[in-house]
Amino acid sequence: MSSSLIVGLVGGGTVGGGVYDIVEHTHKDFFRSLGAQVQVKRIAVRNLKKQRDFSVAAHTELVGDWRLVLDDPEINTVIEVMGGITEAKEVVFGAIAKGKHVITANKALLAAYLPEIVDLLKKHPQVKFGYEAAVCGGIPIIHTLQNDYLGDQVSQILGIMNGTTNFMLTKMESGADYGQVLAEAQALGYAEADPTADVEGHDVQAKIALLAKLAFGVHVPSDQIPTKGISSVASVDFEYARLLNATIKLLGMAQLSPDGKKLSVAVSPFIVPREHPIAGTNGSTNIVNISSRNLVSSSYIGPGAGRYPTANSIVSDLVRLARGLVGPPFPVDRAMPLEPDYTSRFYIRLRIRDQLGVIRVVGEIAERHGVSIYAILQNPISDPNDIHFVVTTEPARHSQVQAFADDIEKQDFTKGPPLFFAFLL
Amino acid sequence: MSSSLIVGLVGGGTVGGGVYDIVEHTHKDFFRSLGAQVQVKRIAVRNLKKQRDFSVAAHTELVGDWRLVLDDPEINTVIEVMGGITEAKEVVFGAIAKGKHVITANKALLAAYLPEIVDLLKKHPQVKFGYEAAVCGGIPIIHTLQNDYLGDQVSQILGIMNGTTNFMLTKMESGADYGQVLAEAQALGYAEADPTADVEGHDVQAKIALLAKLAFGVHVPSDQIPTKGISSVASVDFEYARLLNATIKLLGMAQLSPDGKKLSVAVSPFIVPREHPIAGTNGSTNIVNISSRNLVSSSYIGPGAGRYPTANSIVSDLVRLARGLVGPPFPVDRAMPLEPDYTSRFYIRLRIRDQLGVIRVVGEIAERHGVSIYAILQNPISDPNDIHFVVTTEPARHSQVQAFADDIEKQDFTKGPPLFFAFLL
Repeated sequence: MSSSLIVGLVGGGTVGGGVYDIVEHTHKDFFRSLGAQVQVKRIAVRNLKKQRDFSVAAHTELVGDWRLVLDDPEINTVIEVMGGITEAKEVVFGAIAKGKHVITANKALLAAYLPEIVDLLKKHPQVKFGYEAAVCGGIPIIHTLQNDYLGDQVSQILGIMNGTTNFMLTKMESGADYGQVLAEAQALGYAEADPTADVEGHDVQAKIALLAKLAFGVHVPSDQIPTKGISSVASVDFEYARLLNATIKLLGMAQLSPDGKKLSVAVSPFIVPREHPIAGTNGSTNIVNISSRNLVSSSYIGPGAGRYPTANSIVSDLVRLARGLVGPPFPVDRAMPLEPDYTSRFYIRLRIRDQLGVIRVVGEIAERHGVSIYAILQNPISDPNDIHFVVTTEPARHSQVQAFADDIEKQDFTKGPPLFFAFLL
Repeated sequence: MSSSLIVGLVGGGTVGGGVYDIVEHTHKDFFRSLGAQVQVKRIAVRNLKKQRDFSVAAHTELVGDWRLVLDDPEINTVIEVMGGITEAKEVVFGAIAKGKHVITANKALLAAYLPEIVDLLKKHPQVKFGYEAAVCGGIPIIHTLQNDYLGDQVSQILGIMNGTTNFMLTKMESGADYGQVLAEAQALGYAEADPTADVEGHDVQAKIALLAKLAFGVHVPSDQIPTKGISSVASVDFEYARLLNATIKLLGMAQLSPDGKKLSVAVSPFIVPREHPIAGTNGSTNIVNISSRNLVSSSYIGPGAGRYPTANSIVSDLVRLARGLVGPPFPVDRAMPLEPDYTSRFYIRLRIRDQLGVIRVVGEIAERHGVSIYAILQNPISDPNDIHFVVTTEPARHSQVQAFADDIEKQDFTKGPPLFFAFLL
């Protein structure tokens, strides 16, 4: 049953070190008990002189070029944890082409080249491909979707898939300001010096595209996912959310239309009601919630990133591989039109100069675009020249609300584009 | 890769009907796409004349005796969903002995005969054994523990594993009374006419024993699990829990001692702080929370029972079987002493007649048993002859609190045995 795995690890940083530590140190006995040889023969690193924070066994060679991993005929399994999508593509595609099994944590690579990877794997059916670590670090959501929803029908998948922004939103909920929490996240090493990928939602975009592929079989190109980050969310939005007995979370969402014929995929902040398990998922923790016919609603909560959570997912793929238990990495391809124009109730925050007739104009513009207003919320006014107020809507299409917001922006009482996002229903 | 599965279904009730419906109707095309024949050849039912709530295909024969399933040499896979542990034991043991794969939803059977099943499977290594449906119906917790924690070290597993009692506790939290919610649960078909197995925690006992085996490799006989149900919990306990910014949940818990050398397993109501994901898991939903070295804390939430959630888990086992992806059902056996005497902060509700000096006596008894009191809570008193008050403790051993409670019960001011249970820390 068990196969010998001679592993080449490409990347000796945070995650690579964690994988090495588990395979060669803490769980060496467990791997021995599998009755198969599992050992890391080579680790390819960028800088051979850099001090490593893990101890390297005598049977492992550090090499300065990942080609020495691919060219080693004894290595039958490549673990790619180098990141990036240029060299990593050469590593992953090269390894598959040479018939080596691949385990990767690289969501960006998968999102950028999913159809190519699917095709290449079809040409090399003996190659096993694991990517549990690519989405939500320590949550086994890939394995679960690959194995436990096959007799079910998923209708929606959504969740908090970025720990950095959830950490920031959780802090903002306690009254902190966007700039302040971003600086704090950067000081703690949670956010990059250039935080764009996190705060503008691009990281979540890649993850929800992968989960949509797994849940629905549909390839969703990242550039076709309407994406709104958290950089426009202010602490005042949390005050309004509190009035709505809700909070604000940055979610990736993929949702079948009620007739099952179209798929809407989006990344956006959402107003999340307090009683939903997503609302209570705080700090850098991730959650994925799945709606389906058999299970109705199920949630998976765990760490979204970090050395050992991510390494744990890679090791789980490695154990499956050693035991011969890796199944098809992706479901059967399915084509389905994408519908960017999802329907929801919406939260719209307007920033205006107070003047007579604003509400009448807002009402007229809403009516013109077919947007039915549910409520208008107003915090106490301190400066009549810079007022926030919030309009909540009855269910409306995103495009209607966008048109409403564009029209509001043109009015002379407006002090900037309205911020809007959907309610999680 | 894929194997033909000729299935004998033993049990044509709620769960059996759900499995049949998925395999032979809603997901027939998916099973065809596996490239393997998967079909239900026989369904053994107790009463052949009873009307079934699913339509039976021409290739499926209803039989009145499960021996006709076991004796059919063409049937290579037996799904046992009949329940009970007498005949079900004959079915499961008989099928394994004949070299047929087994999928079962029967937690009671597994809990009662776990070492025997493990031994029998060792004698028949070609037999695959699936039991995802046995614990927490729709949560894939068995597969997750079998596959995704193998490079990790679990230190604690706990959760809400019984939907009936969680439904009842959720109702009681809103002020309803135990007797009233039990009657309601019975009327809705959630609770049996004899609700003992649910309300006294025996159902959870079987489930936590199975999860302890999976997480720690240790066989924990059910009769060695200290078990306290919810029948003594009153709505007044929820009032006190609210003062503690917490709620009350019936949990199964298995916990390694800090030195990793002993295992404590218990079933009891717990005081659960509001911010813990377990506190927000309401109604008949189940949750399993796992503490481990790599993942720190992770939670799995879903339906705990019901036709399609349970059937979904059985179908997931069936798909793995068809794909040749079923791994070892249990981890390597490990022996570890059981320590029933776990340490926690405790909640103790006393029922007394008001008289001078009660608090002094309570304090003396606590001191005598080494129990350090953290706080004393008292709701407004309506009848001085029947007063509730609550003592919360600093961390203490269960046995110390039991001795304290036994001593309190002997005092002349006492109106019944104190109710006590642990805080979830």
